[in-house]
Amino acid sequence: MAIHFHKVTIIGVGLIGGSFAKVLRATGLAGSITGLGRSRETLELALELGVIDHMELVAKHAVEGADLVVLASPVGTFEQLVYEIGPHLERGAILIDVGSVKGRMVHRIEEILPKEIQFVPCHPIAGKEKFGVFEATEKLFRGTNCILTPTKRTESAALNMLREVWITAGANVIIMDPDMHDEIFAAVSHMPHVAAFAMMCAVAELSTGTDNYLNFSGAGFKDFTRIAASSPEIWRDICLMNRDNIIQMLDRFLFSLNRIKQDLVANDAKRLEKHLKIASDARRGLG
Amino acid sequence: MAIHFHKVTIIGVGLIGGSFAKVLRATGLAGSITGLGRSRETLELALELGVIDHMELVAKHAVEGADLVVLASPVGTFEQLVYEIGPHLERGAILIDVGSVKGRMVHRIEEILPKEIQFVPCHPIAGKEKFGVFEATEKLFRGTNCILTPTKRTESAALNMLREVWITAGANVIIMDPDMHDEIFAAVSHMPHVAAFAMMCAVAELSTGTDNYLNFSGAGFKDFTRIAASSPEIWRDICLMNRDNIIQMLDRFLFSLNRIKQDLVANDAKRLEKHLKIASDARRGLG
Repeated sequence: MAIHFHKVTIIGVGLIGGSFAKVLRATGLAGSITGLGRSRETLELALELGVIDHMELVAKHAVEGADLVVLASPVGTFEQLVYEIGPHLERGAILIDVGSVKGRMVHRIEEILPKEIQFVPCHPIAGKEKFGVFEATEKLFRGTNCILTPTKRTESAALNMLREVWITAGANVIIMDPDMHDEIFAAVSHMPHVAAFAMMCAVAELSTGTDNYLNFSGAGFKDFTRIAASSPEIWRDICLMNRDNIIQMLDRFLFSLNRIKQDLVANDAKRLEKHLKIASDARRGLG
Repeated sequence: MAIHFHKVTIIGVGLIGGSFAKVLRATGLAGSITGLGRSRETLELALELGVIDHMELVAKHAVEGADLVVLASPVGTFEQLVYEIGPHLERGAILIDVGSVKGRMVHRIEEILPKEIQFVPCHPIAGKEKFGVFEATEKLFRGTNCILTPTKRTESAALNMLREVWITAGANVIIMDPDMHDEIFAAVSHMPHVAAFAMMCAVAELSTGTDNYLNFSGAGFKDFTRIAASSPEIWRDICLMNRDNIIQMLDRFLFSLNRIKQDLVANDAKRLEKHLKIASDARRGLG
């Protein structure tokens, strides 16, 4: 299959959007790449770095003539963006997103999007320790999983094309139902982020009077709470867009926490060890 | 100050005990080093690696003639060990431990220990991703914090001597009250471990039917739960020895978690963002 996009528009040229642009360029999959964003500085930097060929601040202008449009801004912006760009998309264009929620968001976008536009929802599970277009690299997706969550409305031609693109980027492609995606990621990503945020809230203000307790935190605590440094705006949106699943997973977590707390209150060494061992065995299996 | 121990006995020759032995040897602080343990294989390996000079399986024989005795076995074993070795310790010998709970444990050992033996409780905050004497290195403590928690009973000569030893090992020495130590470490280490164990329990059994949810976990989840791979036996003992503080910290954590859950239930974007931002700001300050 010879894939070539005449014009690609990347909405949100950060780490993920910029890295995806670099993949397209490095593999010759794109003719020209236009970046759309809210920040002129970011777009100028992306131009300077050669990540994009053109910059644009007005959504409907940015997508004119594009045969591939990529939503790579925070997930909370997708719905409004699709309202804005929908009527201006080329007939036959493919829209994708790279957000970390699917489920209701996918169904909502399909309601808004003109029927003649294909939508292929993508979730590249790529490292995000660092942010911004300056960190973008065509290597970002190598060896990672990328989940595609098509619906009945998604044509197999568009799905297969995007599958090829992500494989070209070095990713392992997994096809999954959008609602199943949100259940799984509530468990392995969204709820753990909430827990890390809550942990920091619980500990941040504690002090001996002269020293903040956090001064004594070791590698374990730092590992545990690293994801709490993530953007509050982005995580607010993710949490709200997947709130039912996250609430359900939080309830599971609260149950497990309270169970161990009860073992401590009861001073029950046997039950405590049993509950710790379930966890330890599972974690060792994870590598 | 010229410090030299004629005979040092290390009880529990694992990563920490073995690394401490290597420091003593590398810096010429010890004449001979005897290792005591439950496992003949471990001790034979320690002998082969040159970490210890002699091995011993009977506690009272191991400490005969020693002027420094190091408790480096799991904290749950300390009380029984001090009962066993107490009557056999040399007059003027120094006993130290390298456990991660202090507080009640320190007070308990001081009750049991013969008056003429000095006790200097130590907590080296050293990385423990890997285990066992094979991983022991004299570099383990370089650049780390080591907390000493003397009591009224601790003579300043013994305290200063151990301070010098840890500085020689490359550690930054902090002196702290044993009860304050346990409050702080409940917050930054023990409760977070409990949370990681509980998180694994909550997620471990979830499956799509064909795939365990854990198969989809990314770097964030693995970071978050890494400490749950720790030994259930060791953490059972730590949890029970510091249970009052850990229960109190768990309550703070449960409060923070429930607060965010309520923000989700109420679909309150503003309050949610506010709570996430407190955490994110605190975590970014931590490095």
